[in-house]
Amino acid sequence: MTKTSYTAAIIVIGNEILSGRTKDLNLGWLGEQLNLRGIRVKEARFIADDEAAIIDTVNDLRTKHSYVFTTGGIGPTHDDITASCIAKAFERPFEENPEARALLQEYYGDRLNEARLRMAKLPKGAELISNPVSAAPGIKIDNVYVMAGIPKIMQAMFHSVADTLIGGQVVQSIAIDCHFGEGDIAPGLTKIQSRHPDVEIGSYPACKPGDIAVSIILRHSDAPLLKAVAGEVQNMLDDLENKKTVTSGC
Amino acid sequence: MTKTSYTAAIIVIGNEILSGRTKDLNLGWLGEQLNLRGIRVKEARFIADDEAAIIDTVNDLRTKHSYVFTTGGIGPTHDDITASCIAKAFERPFEENPEARALLQEYYGDRLNEARLRMAKLPKGAELISNPVSAAPGIKIDNVYVMAGIPKIMQAMFHSVADTLIGGQVVQSIAIDCHFGEGDIAPGLTKIQSRHPDVEIGSYPACKPGDIAVSIILRHSDAPLLKAVAGEVQNMLDDLENKKTVTSGC
Repeated sequence: MTKTSYTAAIIVIGNEILSGRTKDLNLGWLGEQLNLRGIRVKEARFIADDEAAIIDTVNDLRTKHSYVFTTGGIGPTHDDITASCIAKAFERPFEENPEARALLQEYYGDRLNEARLRMAKLPKGAELISNPVSAAPGIKIDNVYVMAGIPKIMQAMFHSVADTLIGGQVVQSIAIDCHFGEGDIAPGLTKIQSRHPDVEIGSYPACKPGDIAVSIILRHSDAPLLKAVAGEVQNMLDDLENKKTVTSGC
Repeated sequence: MTKTSYTAAIIVIGNEILSGRTKDLNLGWLGEQLNLRGIRVKEARFIADDEAAIIDTVNDLRTKHSYVFTTGGIGPTHDDITASCIAKAFERPFEENPEARALLQEYYGDRLNEARLRMAKLPKGAELISNPVSAAPGIKIDNVYVMAGIPKIMQAMFHSVADTLIGGQVVQSIAIDCHFGEGDIAPGLTKIQSRHPDVEIGSYPACKPGDIAVSIILRHSDAPLLKAVAGEVQNMLDDLENKKTVTSGC
C-alpha cells in the first residue's frame, strides 16, 4: 500500500437487486473505473429500499473511505427514497433545489408534474451531478456521490464527476494463465507471495471440464516490480512443465 | 411481513470482484433461489480477501439474519483464507477434518499434495457441504454456509443443502409493463401503495430511447391480494391511456 491510498465503498440500493430479479452491473463497472483512477474499491454493500438501512450504511461507510458511491433509488416514484435518506444521514433539510428544478423544467416542459418534481427535492447544499441522459441530477455531499441505478445513467453521471476524483498511484496488473491445477501451483505461488508480501497475488480457477485453467493475477502500482514477479511466476510454471506433472481438477 | 419471516445475508468474498475483473454472478442467483424457498435476502456485502473484514462481517451478519451464505476463498492457494477466518469468527480450532480429507483423497488420489490438503483444514465441528463438482467441501456452522466462489460449484453446493433450509411463505410477484414514464404513473402508484402498505410495489424504468417502458413489480405472499392490487394498477394504467397522456423520458 502506498501512503497516499484512496479507497471507495459502493452502496447498491434496491429490493430488485436483492431478489435477483435485476442483476447488478454497476459494482463491476465502478470497480474498474475507480481502479483506473488509483482508487481502490474496498467493500460494497447491497441493501434494500429501506430508510434505516440506507442511513446507517451511508454513515458507516463515509467515515471509513475516501469516497462512497451509491446507485439506485433516485427516481420519481414512491419507492425512490435515497435522496431523502441522504438528507437524514447528513442531518440536512430536504428541500427543492432551484437548479435541479430548472434542469427538470427544461427537460420535461409541461410534462413536469408533481411526481417528477420530487427529483428536484434534495439535501440542502448538495452539489448536483450532471445527468446528460435524462436530466434528473445525482448529488454529491462531502465524499458521498449519489447516482442513478440504471447503468447507462449511472455511467453518464460518473463520467460527469470522474475528472474531479483524486486518486493515488494506479494499481497495475499482469495476468498469467496456466493449465495446471490450483493445487499444483499453490506451493510455488506461496513462496513467491512470501518473498513479495506487497504484491497482491491472486489465483482464480476456471474449473472447466477438460480445460483446467487458472489465471494468476499480480497487482501492484510498481510496474518494474510487477514484471519481475511475473518472471518468477513464469519460471515456477516452466519448472512444473519440465517436471511433466500430470494435473486435473481444480 | 409474516410473523415467520426468514431472512438471509450474502457475503461475497474476493479482491477480484471488487476490482471489477470478475463480475459476480452469485448474488442474483442466490437471491432467486432463496426467494423460491421463502427466504428473503435482506443485504449483501462484498468484501476483500482480508481476515479482519471476513471475521467482522460474518459475526455481524450471523446474529442479524436467519441465514448467512458466503461465496469465495475456499481453494488451495495462499489467497484462500475464508475457512480459517470462519474458524476465528466462531472461535473454534482450525484443523484437518478426516471426512474432508477422505473426500479429497478419493478425488485427487496421488495428486493430493500439501496445498490441496489445505482444503481439508476446517473449523472444528463444521458440517460438510457436498461438492459434487470438485470434491473439496463447503461447510456449515450454525446458520453460516460457506461455499465456493465459482458459480457452478457454488450452485452445486447450494443444491446440496437446499432441502434442509427452512423458509416462510414464498413471496410471489406480478410484473406489469407499461409504456408510460415513471413520472406519469407515480401519482397513481403512490395512491395504490398507500392503500396496500404491505404489498411491495416497485417501479423499474428501462429508459431505452424510443421505448419508454417501466416494469411495475408487485410482491406479496398472498396471491389473491396480489391479483387484486394488480387489477388496481391495470385500472390506473387504463385511465392514463384513456387520457392519452403524451409521455417520454424516464
